[in-house]
Amino acid sequence: MLEEFFHPNGVAVIGASAAPSKGGYYLLKNALVGYKGKLFPVNPKYDEILGVPCYPDIQSIPEDFDMAVYFIPARFLPDTIRECGRKGVKAIIIESAGFSETGEEGKALQEESLALARRHGIRLWGPNCMGYLDGHSRAAFSFMHLDDWTPYIKEGNVSFIVQSGMLSAGFLIMVLGRGGMGIRTACSIGNKCDVNETELLEYFVNDERTGVIGCYLESIIDGRRFLDLAGSTDKPVVVLKSGRSDIGARAALSHTASLSGSDALYTGAFRQAGIVQVYDLHELMDMARGFSMTRSFTPVAGTAVMTFSGGAAIVTADLLADNGLTLPRFSAETIASLKKLFPVWAGTDNPLDLWPAVEAGDFQTVYTAAAEAILSDPGVDSAIVETFARADGKYGYIEAISGLARKYAKPVAVWAIGIGPALGMFSSAAENAGLPVFTEIRRCTEFLAGVRRHYRKMKKL
Amino acid sequence: MLEEFFHPNGVAVIGASAAPSKGGYYLLKNALVGYKGKLFPVNPKYDEILGVPCYPDIQSIPEDFDMAVYFIPARFLPDTIRECGRKGVKAIIIESAGFSETGEEGKALQEESLALARRHGIRLWGPNCMGYLDGHSRAAFSFMHLDDWTPYIKEGNVSFIVQSGMLSAGFLIMVLGRGGMGIRTACSIGNKCDVNETELLEYFVNDERTGVIGCYLESIIDGRRFLDLAGSTDKPVVVLKSGRSDIGARAALSHTASLSGSDALYTGAFRQAGIVQVYDLHELMDMARGFSMTRSFTPVAGTAVMTFSGGAAIVTADLLADNGLTLPRFSAETIASLKKLFPVWAGTDNPLDLWPAVEAGDFQTVYTAAAEAILSDPGVDSAIVETFARADGKYGYIEAISGLARKYAKPVAVWAIGIGPALGMFSSAAENAGLPVFTEIRRCTEFLAGVRRHYRKMKKL
Repeated sequence: MLEEFFHPNGVAVIGASAAPSKGGYYLLKNALVGYKGKLFPVNPKYDEILGVPCYPDIQSIPEDFDMAVYFIPARFLPDTIRECGRKGVKAIIIESAGFSETGEEGKALQEESLALARRHGIRLWGPNCMGYLDGHSRAAFSFMHLDDWTPYIKEGNVSFIVQSGMLSAGFLIMVLGRGGMGIRTACSIGNKCDVNETELLEYFVNDERTGVIGCYLESIIDGRRFLDLAGSTDKPVVVLKSGRSDIGARAALSHTASLSGSDALYTGAFRQAGIVQVYDLHELMDMARGFSMTRSFTPVAGTAVMTFSGGAAIVTADLLADNGLTLPRFSAETIASLKKLFPVWAGTDNPLDLWPAVEAGDFQTVYTAAAEAILSDPGVDSAIVETFARADGKYGYIEAISGLARKYAKPVAVWAIGIGPALGMFSSAAENAGLPVFTEIRRCTEFLAGVRRHYRKMKKL
Repeated sequence: MLEEFFHPNGVAVIGASAAPSKGGYYLLKNALVGYKGKLFPVNPKYDEILGVPCYPDIQSIPEDFDMAVYFIPARFLPDTIRECGRKGVKAIIIESAGFSETGEEGKALQEESLALARRHGIRLWGPNCMGYLDGHSRAAFSFMHLDDWTPYIKEGNVSFIVQSGMLSAGFLIMVLGRGGMGIRTACSIGNKCDVNETELLEYFVNDERTGVIGCYLESIIDGRRFLDLAGSTDKPVVVLKSGRSDIGARAALSHTASLSGSDALYTGAFRQAGIVQVYDLHELMDMARGFSMTRSFTPVAGTAVMTFSGGAAIVTADLLADNGLTLPRFSAETIASLKKLFPVWAGTDNPLDLWPAVEAGDFQTVYTAAAEAILSDPGVDSAIVETFARADGKYGYIEAISGLARKYAKPVAVWAIGIGPALGMFSSAAENAGLPVFTEIRRCTEFLAGVRRHYRKMKKL
């Protein structure tokens, strides 16, 4: 299933170009990075592009190949499908636009092409999309105009199914470049005339190297099956469904010819299926990143907060409440352990402001000892740790806290502040140790609410 | 009014220390940066600290001085007030903790001290606070443990009144270091036994160098007057009121002995007074930053969106709707102008995906021409511009858009993506040109909703 797309034996790049201003140039350049099979650029203008022999048309390609990537004007698609049929091609990724998203004429062309492809036994991906990017092999069948994205890519366990090229190209690369999350596969599906989100969801549900599935969708085809798949997998499924508003829905129609459907209906169905719903683009990425570092969760009373700021403690408590999460009081044992760290006058309950203890003792020791007391508390199922990124690079305590999070199998979200480069250094240290760091306190609380929703589903499975 | 705090003639630093691990060290070090008057460190252990002669006690100070900063244990406060009274001191900033936030005993000590100060005609600031930081003079009466914050400070028109030291110290410095916003004064008011948010609000309402007022508050004393002041000034007032939840309210009591009050009551009253309410810490800073770059706004039909991503366009439309904002259809004239930039098949209404035009033309020309068409549209009162930060540093178009935003007096919020250092470079260029850049699309929409609320108040004034 879908192997013809993900592991093709030979790929033709129809519309490859030698001009670095063109998408067809990047299409070939990006494919060359990680695709190990043979590539056959097709363009009558060139004999070779980027050192690869180029062919004037499909018939001239001297070998068989499984897949074609299509990047010439829309109107040539039916003929191309016929030629591909004669060559025994199994799959075409159509990255060109100009199909159903442009109106009736484009819709007719798309439908005609699909019917033709079915007759030839060819699967279609797109049109109006950016193909996919494999974070493990670095095979990238995408016309993203990026001169060198390879330093930013990190191999990981998150797969994305998106109806916006940006989310499999520039935006994704930017997010990956910040570290913390690695990618399995990012699929841009465009108008999804044949291969759609539901088939890809099934693929990634069964893919051993995918641990988390993130989606940006403007519509859902075969919603029942999508929800069944999401509801029955133990992998977290995070979905940004756009076109929730009237104007958003109208825009979705002209973007990928998607009929958005009722917002209330989706929200209810997502909740039922244990899908974690998000609303903004960085939120989708943050949520996927958080889940990619989360191994287990067992809901008990609620979330502990430890911080260096009394003000942040209160704001965090409010935002947890906004997200339906509670802050349990600590057990007598936890409080007894904490009291050893604090001056007598200081409060030691949840949310916990560590500042009085930090002033009286050693920063790293206080954080680590407090985390042990809190994470071992039987009423605590998760925590938000708020800290100050020291410029001295002494981040051992956050690695210790990550170890405690693993030991007690409780998710911990980190919020940090830091001046100049310190915050970046600290965030790398925390995320390398396995703790997700979020820029906003609200995002920490949204993430833990997402974790709770996902693991509520797990309990039912 | 409050001049004894903001322009004191001579300041004693009671509890100054020569030990770089102590707050009393930073208190003197930070004051030395920008305070032009005489400083008198007081500590019987030292003859001098940081090159400044140190005195064993207040009586030994050979000159008169207007203000004292107090940073020794709480129990010595009454005696200190008496000694200050004898020296003719007018104002004391009490940065030590251990007062009403710790319980009954601390509360009694705080009340006794206040009564005593009133008898001596001394105003008190705090206790349990971090004083203030003046972004213009760089006078900083704050024990913030930062080795060198001066490179990060930028002079500006935003004044903050906060009940959390972090927001006038590390967190604020981090935010200022990113550029885009400059500071007039940041006041940490702690338990506010005497000087409170309402008196400071009045001060900043009348302060010519303050253009925007941001508050983090755990309670509001004299709420009626606070609301009257906020409702009758033409300066934007942005408030994060914490302790909205039950647990947050309990935590506020132990942080600054604040009784939070009813959340629903505050929300309604803030709306009435045209106060822009926010809920998270970066949101407070982002909103203040946005307002610091906003000169005028006249509400008409709604917000235009121009972007390079069809997906982002739809998400933005949804988030605008979530924030009660509308996207008007463009005028016939605007559409006629836009059509010149686009291939025939592409949509040209709001939200506008520029990608088809960018592919067919020059990136900078397309963005500039589209912005002119949109911002001149009589139905458009504000815009969100979404763009890709190019690595080549060619950001002339964003400066052109900033000029158009000024010309048509319409606020523009920018959302950008960019790989590696490009995003930072672009953001600096945009903000230097006067356009606020936000990390999340949602924040752009929250900012424009805030602008609308503030200017609705202005219309009533």
